[in-house]
Order: sequence, then C-alpha cells, then structure tokens
Amino acid sequence: MSQAIQSQSVGPQAKGAITLSVDAMGGDRGPAAVVAGLAICAPKMPGTQFLLHGDEAQLAALVAAQPALAGRVTIRHAARVVTMEDKPAQIMRHGQGTSMWGAVEAVKTGEASAAVSCGNTGALMAVAMIRLRRLPEINRPAIACLWPSRNPHGFNLMLDAGADIKADAEDLLQYAMMGASYARNGMGLTRPRVGLLNVGTEEHKGSAELKAASDLIAEAAARGDYTYIGYVEGTDLPSDRVDVIVTDGFTGNVALKTAEGTARLIGDFLRQSFKATLFSKLTAAFASGALNRLRERMDPRRANGGVFLGLNGTVVKSHGGSDATGHAAAVEMAWRLARSGFHERLAARVASGVASGAIAGQSAEGAKTPDGEPRKSE
Amino acid sequence: MSQAIQSQSVGPQAKGAITLSVDAMGGDRGPAAVVAGLAICAPKMPGTQFLLHGDEAQLAALVAAQPALAGRVTIRHAARVVTMEDKPAQIMRHGQGTSMWGAVEAVKTGEASAAVSCGNTGALMAVAMIRLRRLPEINRPAIACLWPSRNPHGFNLMLDAGADIKADAEDLLQYAMMGASYARNGMGLTRPRVGLLNVGTEEHKGSAELKAASDLIAEAAARGDYTYIGYVEGTDLPSDRVDVIVTDGFTGNVALKTAEGTARLIGDFLRQSFKATLFSKLTAAFASGALNRLRERMDPRRANGGVFLGLNGTVVKSHGGSDATGHAAAVEMAWRLARSGFHERLAARVASGVASGAIAGQSAEGAKTPDGEPRKSE
Repeated sequence: MSQAIQSQSVGPQAKGAITLSVDAMGGDRGPAAVVAGLAICAPKMPGTQFLLHGDEAQLAALVAAQPALAGRVTIRHAARVVTMEDKPAQIMRHGQGTSMWGAVEAVKTGEASAAVSCGNTGALMAVAMIRLRRLPEINRPAIACLWPSRNPHGFNLMLDAGADIKADAEDLLQYAMMGASYARNGMGLTRPRVGLLNVGTEEHKGSAELKAASDLIAEAAARGDYTYIGYVEGTDLPSDRVDVIVTDGFTGNVALKTAEGTARLIGDFLRQSFKATLFSKLTAAFASGALNRLRERMDPRRANGGVFLGLNGTVVKSHGGSDATGHAAAVEMAWRLARSGFHERLAARVASGVASGAIAGQSAEGAKTPDGEPRKSE
Repeated sequence: MSQAIQSQSVGPQAKGAITLSVDAMGGDRGPAAVVAGLAICAPKMPGTQFLLHGDEAQLAALVAAQPALAGRVTIRHAARVVTMEDKPAQIMRHGQGTSMWGAVEAVKTGEASAAVSCGNTGALMAVAMIRLRRLPEINRPAIACLWPSRNPHGFNLMLDAGADIKADAEDLLQYAMMGASYARNGMGLTRPRVGLLNVGTEEHKGSAELKAASDLIAEAAARGDYTYIGYVEGTDLPSDRVDVIVTDGFTGNVALKTAEGTARLIGDFLRQSFKATLFSKLTAAFASGALNRLRERMDPRRANGGVFLGLNGTVVKSHGGSDATGHAAAVEMAWRLARSGFHERLAARVASGVASGAIAGQSAEGAKTPDGEPRKSE
C-alpha cells in the first residue's frame, strides 16, 4: 500500500461527501435487513454514498428493489462471510476476502469514513485491530454503547461493553477520555459528566486498581474537558447525574446483558399480566397507546450501534439480531460520527492526554491484540 | 464463654422452638418498620421466639402496640446503633454494645438460630466474621440473593452479591457448593442447576481464572449434588435454564444494582406513559389490575433477604430501605433456613467437599477478614 493512501486513511472525507462502508453479511436476518436499513436512513443523509460488501448477486437484487438507494450504493463483491462461530484469532489470520474484512479495509484505505458491521463482535474487533491498528497511545480499544437513561437526550454512554475482558487504571483513564470525546461529538454534550463504575460511591470502596483509576480520571478532567463525578453504582447506569460510565469490558458486558435480560423479563411479565384475565385482555387494547410509548422508549433498536474506540478509524458494531430499524440506527450513528470529524478529534484528544503526561509510564507499542496474539507489523 | 455454650452455637434450636435474633435498628425507616414486619410474619411461624435488639424504651412501646407479638418478643437493650457511614473495620474493633453486634452474638452463643439485620452491609459482614468466624474450609464468605426469574418457583439464586470484591477459582467453587446447598434447603430444589457468569457461553470466553473455576465446579458436581450447566451470561440471570448463578462479589454487586436500576427505570417510564395523555390516564385505572400483577411479580420486597454463606451460623441481611413487608420477607427467609437445619447441612457439605479433595491446596486458616485485617483469634 502506498504511503499516499495510508496517510489519507486517518482523514475523513470532505464534508458533504461522506462514504460509509457497510458489511451486508453475517447478521441473523441476512443482507435483506441490512439493505432495508440503508433504505430507511439514506434519505436522512443526502449525498452520502455507501460501499456495500457481500455477495454481489444477492445484494444487486436487494438494492435494485429499494428506490431510496438508487445511485447511492456501490457493491463490492466478497465471496466469504464471517460466521458467529468463527474465532477472532482465525479471522485475523485468514479473514481476507470476507465482507467484514472488505468493510474495514475501505476505512483503512480512506475510501470510507466509517465502517458498519452486524457480524461476529470478536472477529470484527480483531479485523479492526489488524487493519486499522490502535491509536499509538491506546493500549486496549473499547466498545462504547448507548444506555437508555433519564437524561434529556435519552441515553447515557457506557464503555467498555466487552472489547476486552480486563482493563487497568490507565486503560480506564483512556476510556474516560474517549467516552467523553464521543459524548461531545456523537451526543452533543459540551462537558460530559464521567463516572467510574464501582460497588459503592464511598471513596474507600473497590479495589486498589479502581482507586488508582479514579485518581487518574480526576486529575485528567480539565485536559479531557469532562467533569468527573467519582464512583457510580449499577443503579446509576440509567441516571441523569452522569453521562459517561467507565468500566472494564467484563463488568460492562455483564451489566449490559443483565439490563437486557431484566428489560425482557419485565416485558414478558407485562404481557402475561395483560393476558391473565378476560378483563385485562380488554384493557390491553385501551392501554396500547401507553404501552407503545413505553416500548418505544425502551426499544433496544434505538440504542443500536456499539462504537469501537481507540483505533485509527471509526467502526460501528450493529447488533447481530437487528432488523432494518436497528441497522438504520447503527448506520446513522456512523454517519453522525463521520460528519462531526469525531475520529480526528478523538485522536487529537488522546494524543494530548499522553503528551501532557496523563498516561505516564505506558508503552504505546508493546500491547497485545485480542486473544493475546503478538501484533502483526504492517 | 464456656465450652458448653460454644459447642451449642453451631447447632440449631430443637424443632418447633426456633428463636430468631433481630436487629431492630439501622434501617432507613427505623425500628417501627422492623417491628411491623415481625407482626406480619409472626403468625406464619407459630412457636418461634424473637430476640429484638435496640433501644429498649422505643422497642417496648412498638412491640406493645402489636397484638400479634404478644409473648413472642424478648427485648435486648443496646444503647448504640451502627450507622450506614460506619466503616466495617471500625465496627469490627469497637462494635460491641451496638444492636447489630448483639443480634449476631445471640447466634454465636446459641440462643438464636439465625440473625437478621437491615443495617450497614459491610459492618454486618465484619461483625459476623469476627463473632461467628468462617467455616474452616471457607476462604471468602458470600452473600446470596434471590433474583426474580422465569423458573416455576419465581426466583433464581445469585452469589456473591457483594460480600467481597474478588474471588479466585476456589472461592467460586465454594460459592457453587454453598449456593446449591441453599437452593436445596431454602428453595426446595433437589438438584439445582449451577451456572458460572461470564461474557459469553462459549468455552474459550473469559479469563484463565474463570476457566479454572469452571473446571473445578464441573468436577465437583456429583459431590455437590448439583448439575453444572457451564457459563451463563447476564441475560441468563432471570432464565429458567439455571437456578444458581455464581460470580465474584464485584460483578455480582454491579449486576444486582444494574437490574434494580433497569427495573426502576422501566417502572418510571411505564408510569409516565400512562400519564402522557388524558386517554391513557383513564386507561391506567382500567389497567390497574394487570399493572398490579406486574408490580407484585417484580416487587423487590418479595426477594428481600441476602443470606451470608460460609460462616458458623446464619445471618440474613434485610435491605436498608425496606418497609414492613420487606423485613417480614427477610425474617421469613431466616426462619425457613433455620427450620430446615440449613446451616448444619451446609457445613457438612462444604466439609465433605474439602475432605474429598475438591478444594485442594487451600489453607483453611490463613485467610483474611474484610478490609484485609488479620483475623482476631478467640
């Protein structure tokens, strides 16, 4: 690859000429849901072009059936698909020729500003790591997800949702910096409030590592343009006293799935409650307006789109089980971030954090890829 | 303390003559809620006596006002109260004379089969550790809590809910053994299904420590009289494919509070949905039957009562914010466990696990109290 193209890969497209790279394959509902999602969001983003990766014959027919996509989509044939069963380490080595690899590669070459995929999360992170590489200052990339909340904008941000299973104090500081940057650029908050997830809000709670992280995050608040509110608990995840919640990827992943499971349980119980008696079956019809309002507010599709942070380029993970509405939300998220020049701002912010000594004693190289593989040089 | 009394302390009262030791102080709603809770549950447990610890003058008036408690309560005056701000290490050293200390001491001396307190969790664990001491085979005690679920009995069991902030593979094995024992004795399940909380169900997910724990728990299944189903995710906490979910106290505490926060958020959104329009306000009245059914199933008061496992005696933690109904549930839990001879069975089970080599290489002494204090000998 020529140096000219490589240097282009860290810059966005000119404003008004955004190109998004979309992996059409690998989701539970197949490419039809992805293309239908594009048709939903394309009218909201005039001028934006889509590079669509996957089986050419299938995709051509699906795109042709969507008038909203006329003249907006370039199909890139990929014969192979990453499955949910594929191991990240294997895809990292032999993933070339898959639609996922192609989608990420287009960000690497600078053809696209951001990539979106609904495939295997671990494999997507592995491909993103190997092709885009980490920002020089970042040890562990993170996945940031939206969390339905009481805040006026309706969401908080939580990271890491599961890019890695652990994080030390300096990783957590980097998550705080990156999460705050995302909240400014993707959510329009000028000075996000950052909290560190713990088992209590008192200062003496939690491990020594967490205390060290808390100190680092507090010290870096001015430089990172955020307000640090200290420890928060699980009950605070949907709270309006915090915007960005920082935690390691193991805890974040368990919390995210616990909330999903709880919401689904309550939804099921609610349906059963309305089916319990003939009278309640009747009232369900009358209550449908209120219940639909609730459903809309809690709709996981609205919050779809995990953003990979800490790489040389923007990658958005759409939920594997998403339908067209969910995929549309993920593509819109990628578009919003591309349009705001998020990636360049984040890179600058993280670099300034290091330059000013926030992440002392850390080697910018020496870090590991997922699965502990030594990083391939390129 | 005489040897005779001490040896009595590990045995239950004779059947039909159960005595429960209740700390009346330290809850957010004061002793009135605790005494009202006793009045609710006392009729369900004929013959059971209560030792009530706290301010004698206050308690005497409250008890006298409850006909259901006539002849059932002995008041033990305690001039001091443990507050939510007190640090566990301080209470461990200077907690004598508090109502919490008195409540636990009555289990130690054998006067009572189990203690219940709604005070400061960390302090209660510290007092329980110093007075009751760990079972000789147990390194870290755990708190087990009930989790609303799709199972026919309505609850799963999750531990550790936050007794300690970490757990190694052998601790997690002990949690599996203790949790299964609790599920048999407290929930009537003959062969509980145990799962280990992780970020995915695939074998390669998670840390090496978790993998080691998974192997230990799988190996001990026959001896522990449980079925090991392998890794579970956050979404599985309310699932009907598992009964006992094992995790470290940090993750467990975050998961528990995340579920609480999610349930509260949905409840608030549901109320707001029904208040959004005049029509929906009207339908709310008609839907109240269905909504009440939902509320009852999700009522956190039904699941109130965190059971401390791994000590020489049963201690139940009632939620600090509980009302009378919540406290009644916690006292009933203590009563059910005392009646089943749970503590003796658990101790035997854990001892057998060690005897048969399950917890190899572990020193039964040498372990630490909370806050890393060296254990006081007595």
